[in-house]
Formats: sequence, structure tokens, C-alpha cells
Amino acid sequence: MNRRRSTGSATEAAAGNGLLDRRSLLAAGAGSVGLAGAPSALGAADLSIEPWMREPGSPFTGYGQPSRFESKTVRTSASAPGTTGAGASRTPLQRLNGTITPNGLHFERHHSGIPDIDPDAHRLLIHGLVNRPLLFTLEALARYPMETRIAFIECGGNSGALYQKEAAQLDLQASHGLLSCAEWTGVRLALLLEEAGIEPQARWLLAEGADAAGMSRSVPIKAADEALVALYQNGERVRPSNGYPMRLLLPGYEGNMNVKWLRRIKATEGPTMTKDETSKYTILLPSGKSLQFVFPIETKSVIAYPSPGITLPGAGIYEISGLAWSGYGKISQVEVSADGGKSWAPAALREPVLPKALTRFRLPWRWDGGPAVLQSRATDGSGYVQPTRDALITERGSRATYHFNGITSWAVGEHGEVRHVYA
Amino acid sequence: MNRRRSTGSATEAAAGNGLLDRRSLLAAGAGSVGLAGAPSALGAADLSIEPWMREPGSPFTGYGQPSRFESKTVRTSASAPGTTGAGASRTPLQRLNGTITPNGLHFERHHSGIPDIDPDAHRLLIHGLVNRPLLFTLEALARYPMETRIAFIECGGNSGALYQKEAAQLDLQASHGLLSCAEWTGVRLALLLEEAGIEPQARWLLAEGADAAGMSRSVPIKAADEALVALYQNGERVRPSNGYPMRLLLPGYEGNMNVKWLRRIKATEGPTMTKDETSKYTILLPSGKSLQFVFPIETKSVIAYPSPGITLPGAGIYEISGLAWSGYGKISQVEVSADGGKSWAPAALREPVLPKALTRFRLPWRWDGGPAVLQSRATDGSGYVQPTRDALITERGSRATYHFNGITSWAVGEHGEVRHVYA
Repeated sequence: MNRRRSTGSATEAAAGNGLLDRRSLLAAGAGSVGLAGAPSALGAADLSIEPWMREPGSPFTGYGQPSRFESKTVRTSASAPGTTGAGASRTPLQRLNGTITPNGLHFERHHSGIPDIDPDAHRLLIHGLVNRPLLFTLEALARYPMETRIAFIECGGNSGALYQKEAAQLDLQASHGLLSCAEWTGVRLALLLEEAGIEPQARWLLAEGADAAGMSRSVPIKAADEALVALYQNGERVRPSNGYPMRLLLPGYEGNMNVKWLRRIKATEGPTMTKDETSKYTILLPSGKSLQFVFPIETKSVIAYPSPGITLPGAGIYEISGLAWSGYGKISQVEVSADGGKSWAPAALREPVLPKALTRFRLPWRWDGGPAVLQSRATDGSGYVQPTRDALITERGSRATYHFNGITSWAVGEHGEVRHVYA
Repeated sequence: MNRRRSTGSATEAAAGNGLLDRRSLLAAGAGSVGLAGAPSALGAADLSIEPWMREPGSPFTGYGQPSRFESKTVRTSASAPGTTGAGASRTPLQRLNGTITPNGLHFERHHSGIPDIDPDAHRLLIHGLVNRPLLFTLEALARYPMETRIAFIECGGNSGALYQKEAAQLDLQASHGLLSCAEWTGVRLALLLEEAGIEPQARWLLAEGADAAGMSRSVPIKAADEALVALYQNGERVRPSNGYPMRLLLPGYEGNMNVKWLRRIKATEGPTMTKDETSKYTILLPSGKSLQFVFPIETKSVIAYPSPGITLPGAGIYEISGLAWSGYGKISQVEVSADGGKSWAPAALREPVLPKALTRFRLPWRWDGGPAVLQSRATDGSGYVQPTRDALITERGSRATYHFNGITSWAVGEHGEVRHVYA
């Protein structure tokens, strides 16, 4: 226990409009900066014996579930007209904390629903430009050496609405919820390819899923270095909605390429030009041309608390908190602004910062009750800085829908309400 | 993609009875070491169009669940006679991989069932030897700065059966399943205590839960430095079975002290001598005296694959995989033996190795089909080495039940069956 007295530095300004030094509330008592609103002169008598202490609670269960009081912490979803399983569901990022997404809330993007795969009947074929085609049962694959890593997956279409001319009034789940992070365990794809014996002219891979859409994407062969055929997600077998019994994990690459229900890897000379890399998942430019095969997710960040739909209960100290991520590697810095980008203060990053994983950032803020525009700006290990929305639109126009990674702005109004604005 | 040819080093012996170098299967093609049993001359025609590819799959759900084919991956539980909620449930470690335990499978130890707590009615009181007692609603607490860390929790009674004179035939879930690991997010207890203003004579804390047992433990005040009042587990709110809406997290300390449904922290001069630290959670020595207040979990490891209940399908290459952990800090090394401790080879550790978190280790092994006794031995950052069972029994006798951390031995029989032995 740190018994030293709090000092003036606890409230040291780090940037304009109330942003405090990131070490403020960690080094000094929060009482000194006005966090507590609790009454004094309390004792044990002030604690009620609540109804749930008066009788034994419920028994053990084989597989646990969240509290019934958390029924709003669910994914929201939308499907294409006439379908129930061609669409996406979104992670409620504004209701979560930390960096891991629990498996029940990992976002989904399906093209023809969730197949009900019998793992004993499922096969993975590796063929094409290989010396020795291989067909794996799950049991055979599970004998291979495994690797474990934490990685985010973000849909290439996440935050696509932020290309629009007017700032849409969406909550964080609707604007950024095609983003999740998990601990994945599986077999290195490179090991399987080496065993099959890749032929020299092979430069691409086709990855195909066992859903009714046969969803498939072309993957440059160099991506195999980091790729896993993932069998486990957050410790347990990958769930049906995330590819049971196996999915391709391509850390940092747009979500659609992380093919679920993986059944086939074919080594090819060039890309296969599948539906999802020609009619979709390309970036339409102002010239009318499209950028194709843009794979890594660009460095990006967003503030989760506060965010639209949340109302601050009054002036005072808050902890601004959010997520930063990069498909290129590690986040090196996240800065926060409370004045729409005029001044910036560095946020604290949760350690250890892992490459191609979500990074949680935090910064204390004293809201004076006046107008504020909150922004976050991430920098990755290469020095690349998340662009302003204006800079991104100048480059890509506003007809694009994929790979939006611009700085996002939340305006705090006089009653504490938070709105999405372009600033 | 690594195109280099596999070399002889792929099968280099690292210790007796078939243990291979930990880098073997990562650096070289597995084909060269006989992992694959797949037929050759395959093509796409060899892949069946399975039933689940012939029609659209199931629709989106708000909160996902595991595959129906994974119905055996559940916790097992036992309660005291006449109760349904005074006992423990165990994590199926032999069916999991990686290091994170999914929330639905985190082990539980309840003393009077799982209370159904309304988070709006719940309060946390901080009182006793403080200048300013504080009473927190969940909403007030959630405004405080948060921290996120990955930590294991192990029940002090985990593997207690291994003190017995005969090697019990238990699977890993039964022998070691009171052990789980999650990413926890919450408020630093030290920050709350500092705000309340701890008086100089306070050296201990009483932590009390809001279950019908009012389960409570005394905690030395220095533990507050690392302690969290945890509100989130693996990203979502802590579940009822793990303390909803808040629990004490004391990284590295025996599980029972990580008080669930936390309602009260009282600063005291000495320990309160609660039921669970006097009649239980003490270590009975051969002399008849008991060790009391043994808090940190000693450095320990166990092999999860293979483990009792699993049968190896035949001679060949396998990846031995398991978990290591220490309540004192980081794991620095895990060694594996296939000959009952005569020779040892260093296993690969999953990076990053985090303090007071589960660490996954892996090592390739060529089983020749003959008898083998598999063991793992962990070393922590201080140089402490996990003791043999004999050494532990010599010190503590066999009437102890808590804090067993001896080396555990799995014998592989000629038909590949795995049994628990004392070796």
C-alpha cells in the first residue's frame, strides 16, 4: 500500500480542456482530485443484508452464463433481405473493458449462415501447386505443434459509415463493432505448406470455407508465415459462429480473409479473383478505380468511454478509455484530445502491448461541464500516425466503404450527452 | 513461407526416451519427422460436399455458445451433502488449449451457492481503520481509473489428492481443474484505500463477500498494491459464478482469498481469524501444527497433453503441452522428462510470459511405443524449482491437503493409455 500523500501533480494538465497527466490517478489518491462522492462516517451498519444473502444461492452449472442483469450486453445483427444469415453481428465495445472479447460476443460476418459442422466429418485439403497434397482430419491436425497468440480481427467494412458526408448518429457498437480480439491457438499454416511441399511458382493461396456460400479469398503466400489454422479461441474450441472446427487466422489482415470453417487451401500462381475480392472488399477511389488486395488493417483507434449513447452524469473527473490497433504491428502511442485536435496528451497504454492485438488506452480528464470534442490518435511502431478524417477523405473520396481508419470525434454537450461529429 | 529444406536437426534428441529439441517442428517440415499420415495424389474432388454446405446455416444470435459437438467440454462439480452450492466446479484443462480460460469454464468454489445480485442495489463499503469510510455503488466505482491484467486463480486445495499415499486415477480436470486464467479489469484497491485514508496501525484487511455464507478472509495490507476490485473478466462483466458485480483479485494468492461478490473491506490491526483461515486453508504438518496464512501459490506445472484418460493412437511424434504458473512472479523455465526424471529437456514457452498468469509450454516427443513416464518441472524468476512429490511429502507429510505443487507423473503404457503414477 502506497501511503504517501497525494501531491499537486495529481491534477497536472497534460493538454487543453481538462486532460490530465496519464499518471495522475495512479500515483495519488483520487480523493484529492474529487472522484469520490461517497458520504463519510460509515460503518458496517450502513450495509444492508440484501435478499441474496438470506438464502443459499443457485447451484453449479457445467457451462456458465452472464448475469441476467447484463441482458443488454449482446451483439446486434442485420442480414440481407430475405436471409437470416447473410450479414454481420457487432460486438458491444461500449459495454466491454480490457482487451479480450469473450467468445459469445465476438463479431461475426457470415455469407450464408452458420454451418452445423460435424468435426469428425470435416476435412482440410491442401493441394494445388504442391508436391504432396494432404487431407487432414481434425484429429490428425490436432497432433501438430501449436502456437498461441492474441490477435484482433476487424472487418474491412468496420466504420464504413464514417465515409458518409454527414456524421451518422450511431453508438460505438454500430460504428466500430465489427472488431474483436481473442487468444487463438492453432497450427502454423507454414508448417502444413512445408509438409505438402510448395512448388516454386506458387505465390498465392486460395482459402475456402465449408459454409453454404463456399466463401473464399486469395491470400499472398507470404502471409502464411504468421497464419494459423486456429482450433481454439480463448482456450476452448473455436465456436460455430467463428469457424468451428477450424478457421484461418491471418493476424492483421482484414477480417474477411480469416476464412471460417476452413476446408481447402490451394496453392496457385496468381490470385483466384473470387467474388469477395472483386465485387467486394475493394476500395473505390474518387477516380472510379478501385484498390484491390489491400490486406492489412491500417492503424486506428477509437474512444469507447465516453462514446455516443452514454451521458456523463455531471462535471468532474472521468477516465477516458479506448482501443487502438494496427494490422502492421504494435501500437507505440495513443494521444487524446479534448478540444477537437488542437492539443494532445499521451494516454497510458496497457502493458504488454502486443503486435496485431487490441491495446487499451486510458487517460484521466476533468470535464468542466462545457463543450468538448474528444478524439484519439494512434501511432504504430513504424511511425505511421492515424490520419484525420479529412485527410482520409481527400485521398479516398466519400464513396469508399472499406478500411476507414480516420480519427473519430465525440462531442460532449452541456448535459453530458455524447454525439458523433465530424471535427 | 519458409522454403528451406528440413534438416537432421529436426529430430535432434534433447533428452532421453524420445524428447526432441523444442525448435524441431518449428524450423523444419514435419513431414521429415513422420507427423503426417495423409494419403497423397489428392485433389479438390477428394473433398465431399458435406450436408452443411447444401443449405443456408443458422442465423445470428445475440450471445453465442459452443458447438453442440463440444458437450463434453464442461465443468464437473461436487457439493457438500445436503447442499447444491457448497463445493467446487473444475475447469476441463485437458480439453482446452492456450492460456485463457473462457468465462463459462472458469472454475468455481462456492460456500453457499451463487447469489443473484442486483448490481444497482449492491454496495462496497471500505471502513475500519480509515479516516474516511466510503460506500460505493457500482456506478461510482466504475468511474475510477481501471487496470487490465491477465492472472491465474488457483484454489489452495487444487491437486490435494496428490498428497494421498496411492496415486489416484483422476483425469486432469479432477486432479488440477481448480485452476483457471483470465484477463481481469478493475480498480486498484490501493487507490480506494488511499482515498479512504488508511490509518498507520492498519496492517490487515478483512474482505467479505455478499453470498449467503458471507465468506470472508484476512488479507495483509501489502497485497493491496497489486489487488484489483475486478469488474470485468475477459472483457465482459464478471459473471455471477465469479463474483458479479465485483470480486477481489489478488494475483498469485490462493483462490479463496480472491473474495467474490465483494461487499466490504475493513482495515484492521491484525487478521480477523475467519472460519476459512482457521478451520480451513491451513497446511497441516506432520507435527500436528498447521501453517497458517500461506498465501502465494507456489511455482507449479502439469502436462495437459497427454494426461490420464487420453490414449495415444500409436508410436510416433507428439507435442507434449502443458501449463506452468507461479504466485511469486514469472515462469523462467519449464523442463520435461519422458523417463521419470532421469533426463530433462527445456520446453518452449509461449511468449510473452506474464507474471502470475498461466504459461503454456510445448515440446515435441517421439514416442517409440515403449514405457514412458512424463513429467514437467517449472522454475520461476527467483530460481525456485518445483519440487518432486517426495521432497514435498518429506516436508509436509501426507495429511496436508492444501498447496500441493509437486512434480506430477503420467505413465504411458504400451497401448498408449496414460495413467497417474508416483515416480
